[in-house]
Amino acid sequence: MSRQIHVSLLEMATVSHNNYGLWRHPDNQKWRYREAAFWVELAQVCEAAKLDCIFQADLVGIAAGYGGGMDVPIRQGIHVPISDPMLVQATMVASTSRLGFGTTVSATYEPPFSLARSMSTLDHLSSGRAGWNIVMSYTPNANENYGLKVGELTSEQRYDRADEFVEVCYKLWEGSWEEDAVVMDRANSIYADPRKVHRIDHVGTYFSVAGPHLCEPSPQRTPVLFQAGMSDRGRRFAATHAEVVFVSGRSAESLRMATRDIRQQVLAAGRRHEDVKILCELAVVTGPTNEAAEAKLAHFQELTKAEGYLAHMFGGGFDPLRHPRERTMEEAMALDGINRKDSGAYGFGGGVTVGEVVDRAADLRSKLNFAVGDGPAVADLLEEWMEEYDLDGFLLRNFIHPGTVSDFGEYVVPELQRRGIYRQEYEGTTLREHLFGPGHKRLPSTHPGSRYRITAVAEPSPLAA
Amino acid sequence: MSRQIHVSLLEMATVSHNNYGLWRHPDNQKWRYREAAFWVELAQVCEAAKLDCIFQADLVGIAAGYGGGMDVPIRQGIHVPISDPMLVQATMVASTSRLGFGTTVSATYEPPFSLARSMSTLDHLSSGRAGWNIVMSYTPNANENYGLKVGELTSEQRYDRADEFVEVCYKLWEGSWEEDAVVMDRANSIYADPRKVHRIDHVGTYFSVAGPHLCEPSPQRTPVLFQAGMSDRGRRFAATHAEVVFVSGRSAESLRMATRDIRQQVLAAGRRHEDVKILCELAVVTGPTNEAAEAKLAHFQELTKAEGYLAHMFGGGFDPLRHPRERTMEEAMALDGINRKDSGAYGFGGGVTVGEVVDRAADLRSKLNFAVGDGPAVADLLEEWMEEYDLDGFLLRNFIHPGTVSDFGEYVVPELQRRGIYRQEYEGTTLREHLFGPGHKRLPSTHPGSRYRITAVAEPSPLAA
Repeated sequence: MSRQIHVSLLEMATVSHNNYGLWRHPDNQKWRYREAAFWVELAQVCEAAKLDCIFQADLVGIAAGYGGGMDVPIRQGIHVPISDPMLVQATMVASTSRLGFGTTVSATYEPPFSLARSMSTLDHLSSGRAGWNIVMSYTPNANENYGLKVGELTSEQRYDRADEFVEVCYKLWEGSWEEDAVVMDRANSIYADPRKVHRIDHVGTYFSVAGPHLCEPSPQRTPVLFQAGMSDRGRRFAATHAEVVFVSGRSAESLRMATRDIRQQVLAAGRRHEDVKILCELAVVTGPTNEAAEAKLAHFQELTKAEGYLAHMFGGGFDPLRHPRERTMEEAMALDGINRKDSGAYGFGGGVTVGEVVDRAADLRSKLNFAVGDGPAVADLLEEWMEEYDLDGFLLRNFIHPGTVSDFGEYVVPELQRRGIYRQEYEGTTLREHLFGPGHKRLPSTHPGSRYRITAVAEPSPLAA
Repeated sequence: MSRQIHVSLLEMATVSHNNYGLWRHPDNQKWRYREAAFWVELAQVCEAAKLDCIFQADLVGIAAGYGGGMDVPIRQGIHVPISDPMLVQATMVASTSRLGFGTTVSATYEPPFSLARSMSTLDHLSSGRAGWNIVMSYTPNANENYGLKVGELTSEQRYDRADEFVEVCYKLWEGSWEEDAVVMDRANSIYADPRKVHRIDHVGTYFSVAGPHLCEPSPQRTPVLFQAGMSDRGRRFAATHAEVVFVSGRSAESLRMATRDIRQQVLAAGRRHEDVKILCELAVVTGPTNEAAEAKLAHFQELTKAEGYLAHMFGGGFDPLRHPRERTMEEAMALDGINRKDSGAYGFGGGVTVGEVVDRAADLRSKLNFAVGDGPAVADLLEEWMEEYDLDGFLLRNFIHPGTVSDFGEYVVPELQRRGIYRQEYEGTTLREHLFGPGHKRLPSTHPGSRYRITAVAEPSPLAA
């Protein structure tokens, strides 16, 4: 059987995310991002298209770079205002039965004990459909919002801290409640057996957490773990912990290198090739015919705002508008003291000028993995990219709702199904099963989190001390 | 018109809360607390009974006192396992349109910037139905779970910190986004006007938070504020900030004193009598006849577990079982070095013995405000208690679901409506309107949070610096 294509929807509980300017599209309801009904409608469309999950990106600070401040993000609704993504996911749970919910929560700002309970709760409420996208701090404004001095921790330290953060979570999720701790013995009035519920007594460099975990074992215990780190240290973290890795790159070559490197590091970490799915962002504009798809794209293009893309790209603090158009990006970033390695990750090498970057920002078709056409045309491209970049699937960018996902479900999904590379029906009930097949509800034994599992303990309860 | 009775449901996303042993009742579905469907069903019954809100209590640590450890709470499912209450509330939002959602979140453990966004998100998703019950740390285990040394902060310091915590929230909720900041000007591609979105730049003793707030103004901006502090400092905090105060007491006299004191302190804080609603816990067992209600109670009584009530009462660390039955509670607590003032709050003075407290723990009828009977009998008692204790209403204890709320809605609500002291229909859409009348969506000008409001600002955006 050919490799199955995994598709999730890339979302953010804000006005504009990777579709800058399109909140003004007459069919787009995204300005209703504040309403529960908007999300329920979207979730039902995603489930009808049999996506793996709706994935919520998040940022807890405003990106102040491009244009010299926060004006552009606020004016264009770029990641601000933005709602709490966990709560947004929770509003969709009751009206769906299969769709997964992958949520970004920062391991820099939240207490691990709270995060562990939130994820277990969402996994319970959804009967096993929760995922966690592990991110570190990003914008300077986020640091200010949480009272951290900007740059107080180095990137290396942030990852060390994140390693310990997930270790605490593994202990709570996998090692605090034994599988059969909840007995619900009505005759003897025993809800749970105290001998099978354990403190974790974690004392580390960054955290001190006693436990027990507040939640009984949820269907997946550990939620499906997502990660998108692209630095060397980020890839090492992803190869160690992540079950789904998002790769990005501004060129085909950087994307190929990223997937190759991650797959090697996964093996080096003692995990199997099949333990990690690699996804890449995907834009699809489709319709009954190629012409219909092109007409939709033309309308999108007309409404697209270049400054939105520039503000997103340069949220870290670099403002290209302060440089002459003919200056190379490398030179401009060096003059502004921007880390060369970071700039390289964005693919701004090779003599590309500031003017070229600014001009290209609003050109939708210039983006990587941009597919326009009818169902078969899009399906051809998807198959080609899966092969070319060694991918397991895609994160679908949401241009407008309703529209993007319903079009994908109507025109592309049936074609992928005909080719035998997309599910006809959900075969499992949990998000991990959607990704790794029926029966795979829990972390595999090759995952580091599984080392914290406990089995039967015969001694008297350590809690009764 | 007579004083209206306000009723909310007292809940907790756990197996047992104030109904210890009843998870075994054959009609009780509470063991399904992990499922979204359970909460959706409960919310719809609450809305049919036209309650103000479903109120979620919370604890982020296990109460280890009675019996010498955590065994009793775990065995009886007493506040453990427990789900994240905000996420539980969010699952009910989409299937209701009027019911409010009051949620307990600790001001000791969560970062204020996160809490402010979560509450604004829930207020948006629910179109203005969010409430926040402000609590401080409680159990030693909670401190251990968040890496705080037990007793690191004095009770006084915890309240000082909470004062600053809510100040940060007021600044974010009331003072960051001007009322007309969101313009949604499609023609000019302006979602929000950056000149009307402000940093808060809070730098205080405990917190440093820059802002801007990540959410645009929600229907209520500041969620309805609940508080239940019973110490002197706790009442001062409640009289300053709370819009709904829960009072408790083990005797009629202590309850009367509490409401009198709070109403005086509210006036002393420069607020009006009508700015604060005082609620008290209420237990109702009702049915078509007094006999039917008594029969239900007999079944509840049979299933009730004394050790559950004792573990709840003595979660702070006192274990009555280590004392002879004839010893007075005052003497026993003094011997164990328990603060006399705290013990007094529980009403264990006046020579009551350890044996009497233990024996009475499981006697449901001995609890304050326990009403058994048909609709008119219960309504008589409610009216009497409203008068006697100078209350505005009640927090209904949930014995079983389905059962408790549906019975209250079927037998008591129509009787209260006949007497003109309970709403026929919801008249407003927000939780604050349910409590304070149509049109009262926002904090009144007498509330300290309203001082942080901003109005038109003519100068250029301070963000563009």
